[in-house]
This record gives sequence, structure tokens and C-alpha cells, in this order.
Amino acid sequence: MRNRLLDQIRFILEIDRLKSILRQTVLVDESRYENSAGHSWHLAVMAILLHEYAAESVDLLRVVKMVLVHDIVEIDAGDTFCYDEAANSDKLAREQAAADRIFNLLPDPQSAELRSLWDEFESGESSEARFARALDRMQPVLLNLAIEGGSWRRHGISARQVVERNSPIGDGAPELWLYVEEQIREAVANGVLVE
Amino acid sequence: MRNRLLDQIRFILEIDRLKSILRQTVLVDESRYENSAGHSWHLAVMAILLHEYAAESVDLLRVVKMVLVHDIVEIDAGDTFCYDEAANSDKLAREQAAADRIFNLLPDPQSAELRSLWDEFESGESSEARFARALDRMQPVLLNLAIEGGSWRRHGISARQVVERNSPIGDGAPELWLYVEEQIREAVANGVLVE
Repeated sequence: MRNRLLDQIRFILEIDRLKSILRQTVLVDESRYENSAGHSWHLAVMAILLHEYAAESVDLLRVVKMVLVHDIVEIDAGDTFCYDEAANSDKLAREQAAADRIFNLLPDPQSAELRSLWDEFESGESSEARFARALDRMQPVLLNLAIEGGSWRRHGISARQVVERNSPIGDGAPELWLYVEEQIREAVANGVLVE
Repeated sequence: MRNRLLDQIRFILEIDRLKSILRQTVLVDESRYENSAGHSWHLAVMAILLHEYAAESVDLLRVVKMVLVHDIVEIDAGDTFCYDEAANSDKLAREQAAADRIFNLLPDPQSAELRSLWDEFESGESSEARFARALDRMQPVLLNLAIEGGSWRRHGISARQVVERNSPIGDGAPELWLYVEEQIREAVANGVLVE
């Protein structure tokens, strides 16, 4: 029993490093880049508030678990900017290796449970994964819109790229995608995004 | 329906500010102070991994929701260092006012649900609240122990103060408190904490 607890605590201390993984998104107060721990917290609260918009009925606890652990692999693999095609070519291999190492720090069956939630999120083939992935795409869009373009403007991302990247929101939460699409159109009209 | 979604999104953008509320705890990599969003994420993962140690059986989703929202009031009220007696004297009033403002941004019944989860956490009178409060106390202890004293050393906190502050962990998770107590004794033996 004591060894089991020691392994759990080792994992808990290891994942503290997610708080130092910086994303491309800037906070709404524009003080700094967001980190992946804060991003994961934000998604979990969004899941609780927005699950009524999920395309199919979802088990909310599974969605919340999924978004809480979906970025833990970045501790080894780093955050990969979604519009960076070169970095995305070996993202899968880097993240698989990270998942092998990090989730295996946990005792069974927790190791297997978290790994399987991560695999499920990645493959996006359950109603929970589709909804979780919709939130993961929507959250940086909301932040970028709130600060007049944020990382889109910095990287010269066009409205077409934003729509292409984010249209899968519609698979997990059609009504949220309608809202986001409207906001993107408005951003183009206001000169925040280029066509 | 659209107004409901707009209110939910306003709340989601408002709570982004929790990522800029700094705590006294330093990260395990010692790069900076922890913020309350990252702390809340850490507690939610701990709840998922450690609920087997809860004193009584708990509804895990309720525990996770509770720890995800328990610090949102700090957006208005700031983080109050637990060993600062003066600041703690008006903490309750500051946090009640914050809860009134922030949770009311949400549409009903979500506004009432989150407020009631926050009240429940504060009063600590359910099995979920006792377990959530145990995690909230245990997490900074783990971080401080991992970096040889951290905020205890910086503020000259003694082992007696740490034990007094953290012994309620035993009400929510007796076995976790046995572990923490042992670690505190070891920290005294190693000169990390003064008696």
C-alpha cells in the first residue's frame, strides 16, 4: 500500500512540470503566455459549464479526466504550435514516447486508465473525446478573440487557417462551432483577422 | 439560448484571471511562484488519483468540480497566505463578496450550483468537502517538501505550525495525513524544518 502511494506521489510531483510548459496563447490580461496546466484547468471548467452543447450525450467525469491529462505528454514532448507544419510531422512519435514514460510512473490500474484516456482523446473516436477536442480548440480561439488576434496576429495566421483548424469543433459541439464561426467572421470584419 | 451561451463565455473569459493570481508556493522546478489556476488543476488530478484514500466514500465528480472552482474568488479577493493571521481576519468577507459577484455572471442554475459547491468547500461539512480540503492542504506541503522547505523556509514557519495547519488532512484522508506527518518529521530530522 505504501509503495502504491509513493508511486502516486512521484507522478503528482512529476506533472508539476506541466505548469512550466508554455503555449503560444497569451492570457486575456496579456501579462504572459499561457501554460499547459492553466490551459487544462480552463478546459475542465469549460467542460463542466458547456457539456449541454455536446453533440452526443457525454459522461462528464470522463470528459473532465480527459482534458485534465490530455497535455501531460508535453512535459517531455513540449507544446507544438498547431499551425507549425514541420513540428507537427514528428509530434505523434514524440508524444507516444512521452506517454509511455510518464503514465507508467503510476501504479496499475491507474497507469492503464490514464493512458487509455489519453489515447482516446488523441484518436477522437468517442463522444467524450470529440467534445473534449472541441473544447481544446475553442479555448485558444476565445482567448485570441478577446485580445484582438493574439497568436494569430503574431504568426500571421489567416481567417481561412483558423476556420480550417477549428471546424472540427462542429463535430463535438455544433452550436459552439456556430458561435465561433460567427466570431471569426466578425473578427475579419473588424480587421482582427485577415481573410 | 444565445444569451445563455454569451453569459457562459463571459464567465469563462473572466476566470482566465485566476492564471495571474500568485500563491506563496514555488514550483518544483523553482522557476517561479505557482498560480491558482495551475494549483487547481493539480488538485483535480490529485483527486482523481487519490480518492481511494478518502475517509468516507465520495462522489468523485463533485470533488473535482469543487477543487476546480474553490479558488475562483481569489480573482477579486487575492490569495491569502495561510500563515498570515492579519490577512486571514477579513478573508471571509472579501471572499463572500467575490463569490457574490463572480458566480452570478453565470446563468441559472449553473450560478447556484457553483456557488453552492464553493460554500460547501468552505464549510467543509460533507465527505467531498473534507476530502477536497485535505488535498488543498496536502498539495503545497508536497511542493515545499520537494524543494527543501520552500515557502516555510522563506517565512520562518516551524514544524509545529505546519502540523497545526495541516492536521485537518486527517479528517478527509487519514492515510494521507500519516504519510504527510512522517514526511514532516523527516524534514525536521534533515534540518529542512525547525521544530
